[in-house]
Amino acid sequence: MHAYRSHTCADLSKKNVGDKVRLSGWVHRVRDHGGILFIDLRDHYGITQVLCDPDSPVFADVEKVRSEWCIRIDGEVKARADDLVNTKIPTGEIEVFVRDIEVLGPSKELPLQVFGDQEYPEETRLRYRYLDLRREKMQDNMVLRSDVVSSIRKRMWDQNFKEFQTPIITASSPEGARDFLVPSRLHPGKFYALPQAPQQFKQLLMVSGFDKYFQIAPCFRDEDPRADRSPTDFYQLDLEMSFVEQQDVFDTIQPVLTGIFEEFGGGKAVDQEWPQISYKDAALWYGSDKPDLRNPIKMQVVSDHFAGSGFAIFAKLLEQEGTEIRAIPAPTGGSRKFCDRMNAFAQKEGLPGMGYIFWREKTADSVAQELGITVKEAQAKLKAGEVEGGMEAAGPLAKNIGPERTEAIRQQLGLTVGDAAFFLGGKPKSFEGVAGRARNVIGAELGLTDENRFAFAWIVDFPIYEKDEETGKIDFEHNPFSMPQGGMDALMGDPLEVLGYQYDLACNGYELVSGAIRNHKPEIMFKAFEIAGYGKDEVEKRFGGMVNAFQYGAPPHGGCAAGIDRIVMLLAEEANIREVILFPMNQRAEDLMMNAPSEPQSDQLMELGLRVIPQD
Amino acid sequence: MHAYRSHTCADLSKKNVGDKVRLSGWVHRVRDHGGILFIDLRDHYGITQVLCDPDSPVFADVEKVRSEWCIRIDGEVKARADDLVNTKIPTGEIEVFVRDIEVLGPSKELPLQVFGDQEYPEETRLRYRYLDLRREKMQDNMVLRSDVVSSIRKRMWDQNFKEFQTPIITASSPEGARDFLVPSRLHPGKFYALPQAPQQFKQLLMVSGFDKYFQIAPCFRDEDPRADRSPTDFYQLDLEMSFVEQQDVFDTIQPVLTGIFEEFGGGKAVDQEWPQISYKDAALWYGSDKPDLRNPIKMQVVSDHFAGSGFAIFAKLLEQEGTEIRAIPAPTGGSRKFCDRMNAFAQKEGLPGMGYIFWREKTADSVAQELGITVKEAQAKLKAGEVEGGMEAAGPLAKNIGPERTEAIRQQLGLTVGDAAFFLGGKPKSFEGVAGRARNVIGAELGLTDENRFAFAWIVDFPIYEKDEETGKIDFEHNPFSMPQGGMDALMGDPLEVLGYQYDLACNGYELVSGAIRNHKPEIMFKAFEIAGYGKDEVEKRFGGMVNAFQYGAPPHGGCAAGIDRIVMLLAEEANIREVILFPMNQRAEDLMMNAPSEPQSDQLMELGLRVIPQD
Repeated sequence: MHAYRSHTCADLSKKNVGDKVRLSGWVHRVRDHGGILFIDLRDHYGITQVLCDPDSPVFADVEKVRSEWCIRIDGEVKARADDLVNTKIPTGEIEVFVRDIEVLGPSKELPLQVFGDQEYPEETRLRYRYLDLRREKMQDNMVLRSDVVSSIRKRMWDQNFKEFQTPIITASSPEGARDFLVPSRLHPGKFYALPQAPQQFKQLLMVSGFDKYFQIAPCFRDEDPRADRSPTDFYQLDLEMSFVEQQDVFDTIQPVLTGIFEEFGGGKAVDQEWPQISYKDAALWYGSDKPDLRNPIKMQVVSDHFAGSGFAIFAKLLEQEGTEIRAIPAPTGGSRKFCDRMNAFAQKEGLPGMGYIFWREKTADSVAQELGITVKEAQAKLKAGEVEGGMEAAGPLAKNIGPERTEAIRQQLGLTVGDAAFFLGGKPKSFEGVAGRARNVIGAELGLTDENRFAFAWIVDFPIYEKDEETGKIDFEHNPFSMPQGGMDALMGDPLEVLGYQYDLACNGYELVSGAIRNHKPEIMFKAFEIAGYGKDEVEKRFGGMVNAFQYGAPPHGGCAAGIDRIVMLLAEEANIREVILFPMNQRAEDLMMNAPSEPQSDQLMELGLRVIPQD
Repeated sequence: MHAYRSHTCADLSKKNVGDKVRLSGWVHRVRDHGGILFIDLRDHYGITQVLCDPDSPVFADVEKVRSEWCIRIDGEVKARADDLVNTKIPTGEIEVFVRDIEVLGPSKELPLQVFGDQEYPEETRLRYRYLDLRREKMQDNMVLRSDVVSSIRKRMWDQNFKEFQTPIITASSPEGARDFLVPSRLHPGKFYALPQAPQQFKQLLMVSGFDKYFQIAPCFRDEDPRADRSPTDFYQLDLEMSFVEQQDVFDTIQPVLTGIFEEFGGGKAVDQEWPQISYKDAALWYGSDKPDLRNPIKMQVVSDHFAGSGFAIFAKLLEQEGTEIRAIPAPTGGSRKFCDRMNAFAQKEGLPGMGYIFWREKTADSVAQELGITVKEAQAKLKAGEVEGGMEAAGPLAKNIGPERTEAIRQQLGLTVGDAAFFLGGKPKSFEGVAGRARNVIGAELGLTDENRFAFAWIVDFPIYEKDEETGKIDFEHNPFSMPQGGMDALMGDPLEVLGYQYDLACNGYELVSGAIRNHKPEIMFKAFEIAGYGKDEVEKRFGGMVNAFQYGAPPHGGCAAGIDRIVMLLAEEANIREVILFPMNQRAEDLMMNAPSEPQSDQLMELGLRVIPQD
């Protein structure tokens, strides 16, 4: 018999009854029922109930084991009585009577329990990650991650992509975040950098004639701490293709991702239609370039209804150039209570408030107030038909702009009794973010957002440049490697009007993918950089590898990168990235289990030609 | 029609004749045959012959293109005349008549040619790697590498292994080589390290209850330059399993590797029987712990035949303790010329020489010399049967030890007329290396080594410790994490006698795999370190993560790692590792294409709290 096991802890069923078996695993739980010891023995695959009665030759040894000891047992499989069958686990029909036991690895007192649902501080969990990872949810998350990555690979291979590994110890890459540096020993005073992404290398691969590249690529950014990201590194599905246009990239990645979400999405609906929404429309309709389309709310411009209206704040605002009033329709949100709550939300977000109108059935109360009569008189008038019943618009805004404008707004937004609308005004950039967040809250609070769905949208037509409001300086909005729509001609006009072949994929409010058709023409690239204030020398210094390569027959190419951690978080329904990473850093970028970072040995520094500057 | 291509350059065949097609690719070669331009248009997939006659509306544009320009053409597929069919390429039956052309990316003058077999200095190739990679052999090598890695993954999944990514920015790992350090910005003066291997993490994964782990893992070592290794990083198939013994690991990896070598080995025979040879026997038989078993030569101890013999050098040597005489049999090597050449080889390796005997048909010359008579007299004696003919042993050694001992040696080694044997003596450690190299040369020069075969052997039973000859200090022979055979009891005896559950796989003279059953018991681990002079504090400081984890129910586990670069080199029949890596460093650990390493910006150093010590 094998030294450790004849079966895993998920293998045994009724057909093994009578078999002599050997199992190894961890003591998940021990119970003493009237002198009989019941052990739930756990391995990676499952749990088997093992029991030992006082007649067993090894009872005294079994009595000693504690939670999370690693043991090997020999025993005989017996069927459980019908009323003791556990249908929740595959081994629930049987139990194993222990005849022999070997302690493979005893355990000290546990700093955290594996069995049960007790919560522990993150520092404890990370310091004893090897125990934390034994918990069922963590085992499931890590297996999910592994399976997702495997499935992505298979799907990419099926589309004739080859996976290539690009260098990890390399030069600074121009993604715009902070590099991790690696001092060179052979060249003291010089440094390598870890790649923020394989951007330049994948483009070089296209210049090298490899047609379809992908990689599950580690990316390194020296980020400041934030809850939902790793402070050191993350993984992306990185892909690049030659001789393609934007739609080709979309057609490549869409089946991969829908496949993954169908395979691992726990049965949630996966949108098959992925709308393409311009960056501008996304900002208007959803207040975000990563809109959550599970939420049906779509904002609209309603400036006309407020221009010259009795609502002075908006009317005045609209006299300034570049201002707009936008409405957030809120179907089923038609109560003063809800509207006030949203107004408070806007104030918490730093706005003076958020105007609203809601529509309700006319009541005696409101008629009385409107006509300055008593409630009784109003009731009589309503009954007699002297005042028309039906819908009325409520809220101070409606009063200020009058019934006609109010009704026109209602009709534009397609709202009815029981619904509400919220209004924000000013220069769009100043309120779009809040509007987008308000839309999210409204969708969630009113139950409009369909939680059982993955909704995707391509956000396209990103502007290449943006203007710094303070300095007036023009800089790249995204990364500098995208092909401007219209090529060189477009760059000769107003830079702020230039759109790029650049795209993001939004899923349920997260940016899942980002990509572009690249600028493979050196002259257009130099011009694009010039507009952003970078001279030819600077470009050659910073991106020399790639710019040089483009002078030797560069093919048109494009691609994208999809965030693996984010995909797994969505599938595992986890909000914290550390729940889907095996051995994450804490938020201070420390690994307390392995003691990293740590003081170097002085001869290491000497070899590198470095000195640490004493900190105050 | 698609903007760039209706087909790849490998797609078109006779059935496309008459089709209007669009192709994109690189100008592999242009020829002008009597005013008609022939272009070999190349993409990743293949080559299509494209031609343009002076009647074409775009003749003037086509005339301008040069080698390695990236172009798009439209044209019509025509069948080639039967006598012009090229059966060597899939598109050899057709050619495409150009009707339109677009230059997608022109090229400057080429620093290296893609077409043809011209050799270039490595510096040129690496600086313009994107051109070098366009060459057919490089495309093939990189695709081979990608396919090998994919196939390994599939084979591991089929055996129910999960791939997990372990941290890349982490703590110093104890593999014994030099770490690459990464300065921490959030903790100035402290450093992370890049992992030399995921050794500790994979063992922690086992403690975490994951049963079967693998990873195509990047490993980082700050190595001094050497031709056959990367100075920065390499990839390994890293695997680990819980509840296993040594044979289980063998049974896991063997089908993966035989599968890979059968799939990609170009039809060479792949040994299905993998012998297990002890480290000690390998040293004796093959003079190496990574023997090339394609070579049938097996060395033997022949001390007895020399003890007290007339060959004083060996006889004296054998009076010293711990010395041996070993023979390298050399079937078919029985000529003085060959023996002298091997003797010269030994001298080049720093030995005084290598004694030999060879066996040949007795000749009149040798009889004359032996008996001190003339050749004529000898001929007469041979003819008359007064001197026996047949085999005789030649060489000075044979003379010194006399015919009986010589014959005994011949019989022990199983040699005959036409064969030779070489002899080395002393303390085995002092000559085993040379003996092994001599065995390789003999096998190669005599054509004994079967070049069309992949021959594997497990080398097992490595000693845990070795003694430094100079200091007498006991240290770990390999890595300190292997389980000693016999456990704690064994550690109580002579350390130099302790063997480990530790193994290498040799293939054709290379070490392809290395692994061990790990020491998962803290008390045995502390004892093992104590013998090598490491106190408990030191162990906890250096390997704290793992040693702590082992206190909480560690399972028995083991695994191995296989070198990906080496496997691909063997399959691609390349001797230089840079031929199987996309963007390798040069031997000074520089990337001239990307300019790495480079001077940091001063604010980067400031943020890291570092100062560069000026070099003299």
